[in-house]
Amino acid sequence: MAEYTVTVSSTLQALLDGKKYSTLKDVLVTMNPADIAAVFEEMKQDRLPVLFRLLPKELAAETFVEMEPENQELLIHGFSDAELREVLNELYVDDAVDIVEEMPANVVRRILAQATPEMRKDINDILRYPENSAGAIMTTEYVSLRTGMTVGDAITSIRRTGVDKETIYSCYVTEARKLIGMVTVKDLLLAQDDETLIDDIMETNVISVPTLADEEEVALTLSKYNFIALPVVDGDGRIVGIVTFDDAMDVMEEAATEDMEIMSGMTPSDKSYLYSSAFDLFKHRIPWLLVLMVSSTFTSIIITSFETALAVHVILTAFIPMIMGTGGNTGSQSSVTIIRALSLGELEFRDLPKVVWKEIRTALMCGLVLGVVCYAKLMLFDRLVMGNLDVTAMVALAVSATLAVTVLVAKIIGCMLPMVAKKLGFDPAVMASPFIATIVDAISLFVYFGISSALLFR
Amino acid sequence: MAEYTVTVSSTLQALLDGKKYSTLKDVLVTMNPADIAAVFEEMKQDRLPVLFRLLPKELAAETFVEMEPENQELLIHGFSDAELREVLNELYVDDAVDIVEEMPANVVRRILAQATPEMRKDINDILRYPENSAGAIMTTEYVSLRTGMTVGDAITSIRRTGVDKETIYSCYVTEARKLIGMVTVKDLLLAQDDETLIDDIMETNVISVPTLADEEEVALTLSKYNFIALPVVDGDGRIVGIVTFDDAMDVMEEAATEDMEIMSGMTPSDKSYLYSSAFDLFKHRIPWLLVLMVSSTFTSIIITSFETALAVHVILTAFIPMIMGTGGNTGSQSSVTIIRALSLGELEFRDLPKVVWKEIRTALMCGLVLGVVCYAKLMLFDRLVMGNLDVTAMVALAVSATLAVTVLVAKIIGCMLPMVAKKLGFDPAVMASPFIATIVDAISLFVYFGISSALLFR
Repeated sequence: MAEYTVTVSSTLQALLDGKKYSTLKDVLVTMNPADIAAVFEEMKQDRLPVLFRLLPKELAAETFVEMEPENQELLIHGFSDAELREVLNELYVDDAVDIVEEMPANVVRRILAQATPEMRKDINDILRYPENSAGAIMTTEYVSLRTGMTVGDAITSIRRTGVDKETIYSCYVTEARKLIGMVTVKDLLLAQDDETLIDDIMETNVISVPTLADEEEVALTLSKYNFIALPVVDGDGRIVGIVTFDDAMDVMEEAATEDMEIMSGMTPSDKSYLYSSAFDLFKHRIPWLLVLMVSSTFTSIIITSFETALAVHVILTAFIPMIMGTGGNTGSQSSVTIIRALSLGELEFRDLPKVVWKEIRTALMCGLVLGVVCYAKLMLFDRLVMGNLDVTAMVALAVSATLAVTVLVAKIIGCMLPMVAKKLGFDPAVMASPFIATIVDAISLFVYFGISSALLFR
Repeated sequence: MAEYTVTVSSTLQALLDGKKYSTLKDVLVTMNPADIAAVFEEMKQDRLPVLFRLLPKELAAETFVEMEPENQELLIHGFSDAELREVLNELYVDDAVDIVEEMPANVVRRILAQATPEMRKDINDILRYPENSAGAIMTTEYVSLRTGMTVGDAITSIRRTGVDKETIYSCYVTEARKLIGMVTVKDLLLAQDDETLIDDIMETNVISVPTLADEEEVALTLSKYNFIALPVVDGDGRIVGIVTFDDAMDVMEEAATEDMEIMSGMTPSDKSYLYSSAFDLFKHRIPWLLVLMVSSTFTSIIITSFETALAVHVILTAFIPMIMGTGGNTGSQSSVTIIRALSLGELEFRDLPKVVWKEIRTALMCGLVLGVVCYAKLMLFDRLVMGNLDVTAMVALAVSATLAVTVLVAKIIGCMLPMVAKKLGFDPAVMASPFIATIVDAISLFVYFGISSALLFR
């Protein structure tokens, strides 16, 4: 697809340079908004306003939504008030909110000034909900039906109002704004008879989410039930908006990216890689690097305190990286598995004993295999093949035993910390690899020097 | 939600124990298939057949689809041929294929024997496509319209055939099976006039995917364009099926999970955590642990070869974990960022120079800050506060300089390896933290001992 973007983009550039505006327009109108936006972002920024003005009203608004905030801002600066008003009129409220959230204050003021009073009110309402809540990502443009309507009435009502709705396929039946039923366009079209009351065919056990539900929970719920849209209700059971599947997909994608970023020791970023400057990347990466570097002071202190012993058996030093590395890897296997299961709602805190028990059994198997293989490798490869006579049977035993114990400790810590973090209201993803590795590093050193002392310094 | 499952499940258990079947049925029919499946999985397995038989035909089939393969198999074993046939008749083809893929051969034979000839053919067709391809996840039940139909004809056709289609909202217009247009139910309902030809309102620039497209690419395309369904076409441009948004969501979720598993050194697993045995977990975790343990032999060899030098300056040992840890963390920041951007289609191989240059600048900033903070920490905390006089200005300089160089190396390797892997046709996720850490570990030790030799052993 990216290849396609580049090819189209150079063709369009040529048309633009040749001022062949009408051909350019004919090409653009056959394209999908997401593709037009991708092509526009490849072009020189100063050509954007010209290109954008070639698009018909609706397509222009749809393309605008798909563009990067930087370019949206640039375009808005070039718009006359009338042009801005036209684009705004074509936007769905949730898209308008997304744009408003990314713009600097002066642009926001201009947008709100040019929006219709109704849209201004809707934007302000949605902006009032906390970030990442159902209320903040919903749209207020859904199809609302009333009890007592027939299937025929419902279809007529959809035909009259549907053009402004984000989806017409899930319709919500209300009574005094309370959500009491849901009916799909499929139900309506397949109903035997236009005179059937929607009350008789609607689903009354409607699954909804409260306005303050976390956006990730909203996406999971929608995905679990395979819904096209999920209604959002206030404390009194009144429907205030809907979240559609496409927004849920974006939430899922962003949530997974965010989890990966946090798990690898970065503060999450909204910007895509190519739109992030080196300084952006630096800002998101340096905090955890500093924290982890400073916290490894513990490992230095532990090693320093065993300095005398190490000077006698310098060979022990050679295996510190292997022990720490294995501890980190095995702990991160457990923590990442648990963090993902928590994110997908597959695990609850009450599963903790079950999880710990499963990890202990897994750790015993892994520890046994790693210990045996490590012992064999040390005695056969390091001692026999490489001829390193410092690797005695006792040294090999100390290293292998430490490895097995470290695996056990790492897996128990790796599975418990994310679950406890979630229970305490923290993001479990913070408890991933780098954090756990630091703890496991310290513990494994104690185990190593403890076992070595017992076996070698008697 | 999980709390809710438990509560409902104990209520239902009580009704079941009291043999109050009709009340039980009344409760079940108000519930959503996904919730019924969740409740059923909490119950004792031997009660499943009784519970399942309480459900009306269609709800039974929908619930069946949502259950874990273990329980599906158990139920199929208990089904009479007639019961199996009934469930099969209610399934969509793609769901039937998902089930067939999870069952042992004897169960598959029974399923195929009981399916209608038409469904058997469709199942076999889909099974022929490679795993994880568009063909393998599509369904053949879509709404097909012909050119020349009016809006009224189209609606009548949907009303007649729609009940068996997975989605009716995206309709595909074909001519001699070639896909030539797409029209949504929204377009049809909002058309001015029932006599309008669909040729006049259909989208002719239809975005589709080939049968062999990777399922992740299918999901990304669908998500990019916010489509409810995406048509799958063969080499001659004939439509052979569609992939719906709900399946795309599942693909996205699984792909992210798989990436996380691979990135943390596990072979990916289809089973959810609670359904995996300790032995399952062991099998998926031990291979990489063994590989990484054995490959850390390099670090041991490097350390051993500097043994004599280390015996003189044992203090150098104390900072090995910190240097390796920082190298691993900083490399994994880059690799995870790049792997995710590749997964989301945000980066191409041709972006490599841009990426490397951005990572170098980021690394210089990170390396500078880390080096300075590290030097200050060593001189102020380790030397002054802790009174460790082995930490001389030269030792501190060697450690800090190594840290800065390691960060640079780690970020360059971390960003390049995944992109090169993808170019060579490997899964970039394999090039994540554990793998890169092992390489960076070895390099950072060389740098450390090189710089130390230059500064301390002159």
